[in-house]
Amino acid sequence: MLVTHPVDVRYLTGFTGSNAAIVLPLQRAGKKRQGSQNSKPVLFTDGRYIQQARQETKHAGVVIAQGPILREACGSMVSGGVRRCAIDSEHTTVATLDATRRWIPAKLRRNFFQPVPPLTAGLREIKDAGEIERVRAAANLGCGLFEDSLMQIEPGKREVEIAAHLEFAARMAGAEGMSFETIVASGPRSALPHGHATGQRIPRRGFVVLDFGVLLGGYCSDMTRTVHLGAATTAERDAYAAVLEAQLAAIAAVRPRVQCGDVDEAARSVLRRAKLADFFTHSTGHGVGMEIHEGPRIGAKQQQTLKAGMVITIEPGIYLPGRFGIRIEDMVLVTRSGAEILTPATKAWIEL
Amino acid sequence: MLVTHPVDVRYLTGFTGSNAAIVLPLQRAGKKRQGSQNSKPVLFTDGRYIQQARQETKHAGVVIAQGPILREACGSMVSGGVRRCAIDSEHTTVATLDATRRWIPAKLRRNFFQPVPPLTAGLREIKDAGEIERVRAAANLGCGLFEDSLMQIEPGKREVEIAAHLEFAARMAGAEGMSFETIVASGPRSALPHGHATGQRIPRRGFVVLDFGVLLGGYCSDMTRTVHLGAATTAERDAYAAVLEAQLAAIAAVRPRVQCGDVDEAARSVLRRAKLADFFTHSTGHGVGMEIHEGPRIGAKQQQTLKAGMVITIEPGIYLPGRFGIRIEDMVLVTRSGAEILTPATKAWIEL
Repeated sequence: MLVTHPVDVRYLTGFTGSNAAIVLPLQRAGKKRQGSQNSKPVLFTDGRYIQQARQETKHAGVVIAQGPILREACGSMVSGGVRRCAIDSEHTTVATLDATRRWIPAKLRRNFFQPVPPLTAGLREIKDAGEIERVRAAANLGCGLFEDSLMQIEPGKREVEIAAHLEFAARMAGAEGMSFETIVASGPRSALPHGHATGQRIPRRGFVVLDFGVLLGGYCSDMTRTVHLGAATTAERDAYAAVLEAQLAAIAAVRPRVQCGDVDEAARSVLRRAKLADFFTHSTGHGVGMEIHEGPRIGAKQQQTLKAGMVITIEPGIYLPGRFGIRIEDMVLVTRSGAEILTPATKAWIEL
Repeated sequence: MLVTHPVDVRYLTGFTGSNAAIVLPLQRAGKKRQGSQNSKPVLFTDGRYIQQARQETKHAGVVIAQGPILREACGSMVSGGVRRCAIDSEHTTVATLDATRRWIPAKLRRNFFQPVPPLTAGLREIKDAGEIERVRAAANLGCGLFEDSLMQIEPGKREVEIAAHLEFAARMAGAEGMSFETIVASGPRSALPHGHATGQRIPRRGFVVLDFGVLLGGYCSDMTRTVHLGAATTAERDAYAAVLEAQLAAIAAVRPRVQCGDVDEAARSVLRRAKLADFFTHSTGHGVGMEIHEGPRIGAKQQQTLKAGMVITIEPGIYLPGRFGIRIEDMVLVTRSGAEILTPATKAWIEL
C-alpha cells in the first residue's frame, strides 16, 4: 500500500513532515511471503526533511528522494517486484492518481493501483491506551482554557480578543496550535453553528457560544460551552435546559455495540419533545483523534456500532435565526461498559 | 463546472463555509447558449449555513440541500439538461469522484464528469487591485509582528512562547489565524527548514529563524527573517551575506515574461559561487494569495513565465545540519516593469 495522507504517515511512523509517502508491504492473508527483502516499510520524503525524518521515523526505513517522492516510491516498488498497490481513495486526488500512474512502466500500469478506503481509518477509530492519554491531555487543556476564558468574556470586548487570549494560553501550555478555527459567537451570532470569532463586540445581554479545540501532542480536543450574559428570559433558560438534557441523554446512550444512529436519536428525541428538533440542524457528533473529524459519524440512522476505545463528541445544538443559539459539547470515551466524559468542565447554567 | 474546493468557492462567491458546491455553467467558446434558465451559478450548502450563505454569497443563487450537497447539485444539473461537467482533478479525491458519479443516472453517467485542472488556478495567480490591497495588508501586518517579536527573542525563552506572542498579536490585529504553523527554529534547530516552534529554549548564541504568515481578510502573508544572538563567527556572517545576496539577486530577476526557473537560478548561482548551493535544498519560492502555496512555482528549470499581478515569495535558505540554518523571505509583487517588495521589514544583519 502507498500511504501519503500526512496524518496517516504520522500515525504509522511518527514522521511529522508535510511531504512523505510510505510504501507499506501488505501480505495476503494465508499466503506466505517469498523472500523478505522488501518486507520493511519505507518512508520517502524530500531534502527539507533529511534530519527530521531520521530523528522521528520509527518502524520504517527512510529514503530522501532526489526528485518527486512518488516517482522514487514507484521506482522502488517496480524494481522490488511489486505488481499491485493499494492507494487511499479518500486522500488521493484524481490528478495525483493520474500522475502517479505515469511513474509505472506502461506494461504494468493497468490495474497497478487499486483505490481502496483508507486501511488506517478503522485502526485509528479505536484509540489505544497511549492515544487515550494524549486525547485526555488535550481535553484537559481545553477545559482549563475554558475556565480562563470565562474571565475574558465581558460586554464590549471583541469576540476575536477572547479567541486570541484562549489561543495564546493554549500555545503557552504547549499546544502545537488549534484543531480548528475558534468559534466565539455572541448575541444573535450564536445562532450561526459555525460562527468564527469576528470583530463584533460582546453584547450586554445574550448567549456566547465558545467552541474550540487544541492540538496537543498530535491529538485534538473539541469542546463547546454556551454561557449567558445578563438576565435570561424563560425561553432562553428552557432552551438551554433542553439542549443539556439532550446532550446527557445521548451520553447515557453511549456504550459498545450501540448504533451511532441510536445515540443521535437519543439527543434528537429530547429536542423533539421540547419542540426544538427543527432547530437542531446538524448531527450529534463525530469521532476525534489525530484529526478533528474522524469516524464514526454520530448522525441520524448511522448503523455503524460503537466500540470500546472510540473517542467521540456529543454536541447537540439549536439555532434560532436572528435570536440565539446554544450548543453543548463534550468528548466521550467509549468504555467496555458505557462512556467516560473526557471534558470535565461544568455544563451548569452560567450567567456572567 | 462543479467547484467544491472551499478556497475556490470563496474566490468565486465570497461564501466562507466549509461545505459547499457551486454548479457553474460554462459556455463553449463561439457557441450561443440556447435558453438562459440555468445560466446563473448556484451554490449548494447544508443547513448549518442557512444564514451565513445568504449573507455572504454573491454572483450565485443559494440552495440549502436537504441531503448530501453533491446529490442535490447533481440532481439539479441532470434535471437542467446538463450532460457534461468539468470537475477539478486536483481537489477531487478518487472516492469523491466515484461517489459523485453515482448521483448521475446510469445512462448519463459515462463521461458525465470530465476531470480537468482547476480553472480557477490561472485566474487566482493574477491578483487584481483589490486582492493586491489585501495581500499588502496581510504582509504589512506580518512585518509589524516581526518587529514586535524582536523584543520577545531572548536566551532562555521557549521557541513556542515567541510563536504564542506573535500569534496573539496577529489575532488582536484582526487576523483570522496563521497561514501555516509558525516556525521558530533556534540554534542548531535553525538547520531544519521546517522547524516548527517547540519547547526548546533559545540559546545564548546562534541563529533564530522566524518564518510565519497571517491570514487576514482571506489572504495569506509569508515572511522569514533570521537573526543572530550573541557574537557571530565569520562563517556565520559570510553565510548570511551570501543568502541575502542570493535573495536580492532573485528579486532583481523578477519581471514579466521571465521564466520562474531563471529567478530560481539567480538565487542558486550566487550560492553556488559561495560554495553553499548544496545546502540550499528547496526551491526559491511560490505564489501566495488565498492559499499559502499557489502557482507559480519558483523552482529550478520551471518554464512558466511571470506575469504582472502575480505575488510570489523569494526565500532562498541554507541548512548546515547540526550547525545552523539561514533563510530570508519576502513577498514580491510582479509589476509591469519589474518587482515590488511587499515585505518592508529590514533584512540587514540583526544581532540581539
